[in-house]
Amino acid sequence: MLLTGFDAFGGQAINPSGMAVQALHGRRIAGHRVVSAELPTTFADAPARLVALITTHRPALVIGVGQAGGRAALSLERVAINLIDARIADNARAQPVDEPVVRGGPAAYFSTLPLKAMLAGLQRDGLPAEVSQTAGTFVCNQVFYALMHALATRRGWGRLRGGFIHVPWLPEQGTPSMPLADIVRGLRAALNVALTYRGPDLALPAGAIH
Amino acid sequence: MLLTGFDAFGGQAINPSGMAVQALHGRRIAGHRVVSAELPTTFADAPARLVALITTHRPALVIGVGQAGGRAALSLERVAINLIDARIADNARAQPVDEPVVRGGPAAYFSTLPLKAMLAGLQRDGLPAEVSQTAGTFVCNQVFYALMHALATRRGWGRLRGGFIHVPWLPEQGTPSMPLADIVRGLRAALNVALTYRGPDLALPAGAIH
Amino acid sequence: MLLTGFDAFGGQAINPSGMAVQALHGRRIAGHRVVSAELPTTFADAPARLVALITTHRPALVIGVGQAGGRAALSLERVAINLIDARIADNARAQPVDEPVVRGGPAAYFSTLPLKAMLAGLQRDGLPAEVSQTAGTFVCNQVFYALMHALATRRGWGRLRGGFIHVPWLPEQGTPSMPLADIVRGLRAALNVALTYRGPDLALPAGAIH
Amino acid sequence: MLLTGFDAFGGQAINPSGMAVQALHGRRIAGHRVVSAELPTTFADAPARLVALITTHRPALVIGVGQAGGRAALSLERVAINLIDARIADNARAQPVDEPVVRGGPAAYFSTLPLKAMLAGLQRDGLPAEVSQTAGTFVCNQVFYALMHALATRRGWGRLRGGFIHVPWLPEQGTPSMPLADIVRGLRAALNVALTYRGPDLALPAGAIH
Repeated sequence: MLLTGFDAFGGQAINPSGMAVQALHGRRIAGHRVVSAELPTTFADAPARLVALITTHRPALVIGVGQAGGRAALSLERVAINLIDARIADNARAQPVDEPVVRGGPAAYFSTLPLKAMLAGLQRDGLPAEVSQTAGTFVCNQVFYALMHALATRRGWGRLRGGFIHVPWLPEQGTPSMPLADIVRGLRAALNVALTYRGPDLALPAGAIH
Repeated sequence: MLLTGFDAFGGQAINPSGMAVQALHGRRIAGHRVVSAELPTTFADAPARLVALITTHRPALVIGVGQAGGRAALSLERVAINLIDARIADNARAQPVDEPVVRGGPAAYFSTLPLKAMLAGLQRDGLPAEVSQTAGTFVCNQVFYALMHALATRRGWGRLRGGFIHVPWLPEQGTPSMPLADIVRGLRAALNVALTYRGPDLALPAGAIH
Repeated sequence: MLLTGFDAFGGQAINPSGMAVQALHGRRIAGHRVVSAELPTTFADAPARLVALITTHRPALVIGVGQAGGRAALSLERVAINLIDARIADNARAQPVDEPVVRGGPAAYFSTLPLKAMLAGLQRDGLPAEVSQTAGTFVCNQVFYALMHALATRRGWGRLRGGFIHVPWLPEQGTPSMPLADIVRGLRAALNVALTYRGPDLALPAGAIH
Repeated sequence: MLLTGFDAFGGQAINPSGMAVQALHGRRIAGHRVVSAELPTTFADAPARLVALITTHRPALVIGVGQAGGRAALSLERVAINLIDARIADNARAQPVDEPVVRGGPAAYFSTLPLKAMLAGLQRDGLPAEVSQTAGTFVCNQVFYALMHALATRRGWGRLRGGFIHVPWLPEQGTPSMPLADIVRGLRAALNVALTYRGPDLALPAGAIH
């Protein structure tokens, strides 16, 4: 399976998403070997790099991981939207506003992961976790949308499943935060459920009132 | 134009969305008379009631308004998703989990309002405002999706524009909050821009990093 | 009565506390004329400037006002502590850490204002308000402590009453925020209660669980 | 050393503070055996129970631990204030408002722990931690104040050091939260520094702007 993180952006020195996926590189989870890679936090390059990685490795499962400063839990993203609206510049100093990820693409794609089963697994392990209804409008959402669009439209990729997980800051970046060991443990648990869970997803309420 | 609010839900005694739209009922904004109505906070009835109101009044513009406890600003909603996941029961004691708003409908619709111009107008008036990337997965999002789906698919409704605005609690409901007079003033300013703004929307960054 | 605000600090262009007190300068509230002044956001000068103003004007009531970015309501401060711990530099580039406001002074002073009656008055006017248990450890808390220490220890000042109120950002500074008109209206309402309320304060629960 | 937690309150089924201190009972940290005890969340009984425990065990160090739902980090409390203002009823259905913890006692006591050294130790271990300027106005603050007052006024107790630490919810209680293993690990690290650190505390900025 393929697991991607990002490099540091927004003036920060580190990005826990890149560190956490690196820690899982080469591990076997539920019989699948994890291939980890770091994507650049740039609108121009990240989606193409992701598609190239999928073409090379042909994984059964692709999960993007990104940093969500300000969130206090592992966030299982539900939906990717066809919109870029950058509040800050990316690492190539680009700051597109109100552009589509894919011109002419559908407004959104839902994750094809069993999010509620993954949520239950994380809760069982005593880890802070939640389902999120927005992955934002920056590079994380762009990569998530580009991933789901590729899986939906590329020939022979229809059986691959994909999704996105946001992780909190590390403690040295500010509050709220999560220790790196917990992030790695949580990703491992989430991947394990995503790789082994069969049947319709659990009907566990985890939405947002607004 | 048609402006809808909701009745109280979730054990609260009041709902500022219903109170605020009522305060604008019958007013003229930019030459358009405002028709205000209160929708029931029930999955079973709210969308049909909204469609009936549009059929009766044939407005040029339809804006749904809902309460967002925990938000500190007027939230101009960007996207409605085809998903219901109720964390609490609605006013008819229904609590659907992971069901579509419209079976077979697209994953999402974007608002067709000039959100950035509306945001700029609210900021010019010194009112707390933001663009939001999620209207949640409760009755507000359901009504927003049902509205955009009806405008997109019903014969002759293609020229109507629609959107959704979330408003904070009133001060007596908790913190953060906004005085009712500010909510009413903000809706009035937002409607005025929505009714009069022409041309492509402003390219003002207002997205979310995550 | 004397009402003080602060100048802008921390890289911000404005400070709503200074703007709001200026808007009330010269007004009469409950028969008392308001004298407003702006203090510098510097540890070295702010307390002495405040004491000089009291000496000059001999007001019956002294209320310091400061900006609290991140708070969503008018905050009636309950307690000033004898501690400076500056997370950022002040406007004179000083950044003292873990120093007392007054060497040898008591650990804290409570406000001598009728905070609960003021809270009730603000709520009656539909304004977001709360009682706060900490004024921080920056210049606001220093001025609040210095004020209460002066009132407690200076000869003939024992009948003066004093306190401190934190106000949110203006909408142009970020979220959460409060329109300037609401801040001014809230200060006016709070001062009115502080000047006219007699008897023991209301026994209205407004504490914090933690 | 003595380490106290609380029983569940406020309609919750569990209290992580009681669970975490129990996990450390009997352990040796820096050569000191930990005696853990659970206090009742009642204004009437908690302080007396704490004083009885100190009398029995004569520890060199006493740290109270409590639950702070809504906080995202281990909070090293800086100051205890002589005030009770209960927003909810305690476990004996008492809800005192604006009463002192100790009639005639000083307004506040500062913790006598090396908070900045403890903060640095927690950060070194990659755990979310912060210094807090308020322990609230409920039973936690009451116990913290009663502890510091006893250490300051009881004959022969002057050499004992004391303080208070707030811990987040567990993941099953809501967001933000911290896994129990991290809370236990963090308390252990904090106690270790408190027991071994010598000399003046580190001059590490960790205050609040407001």
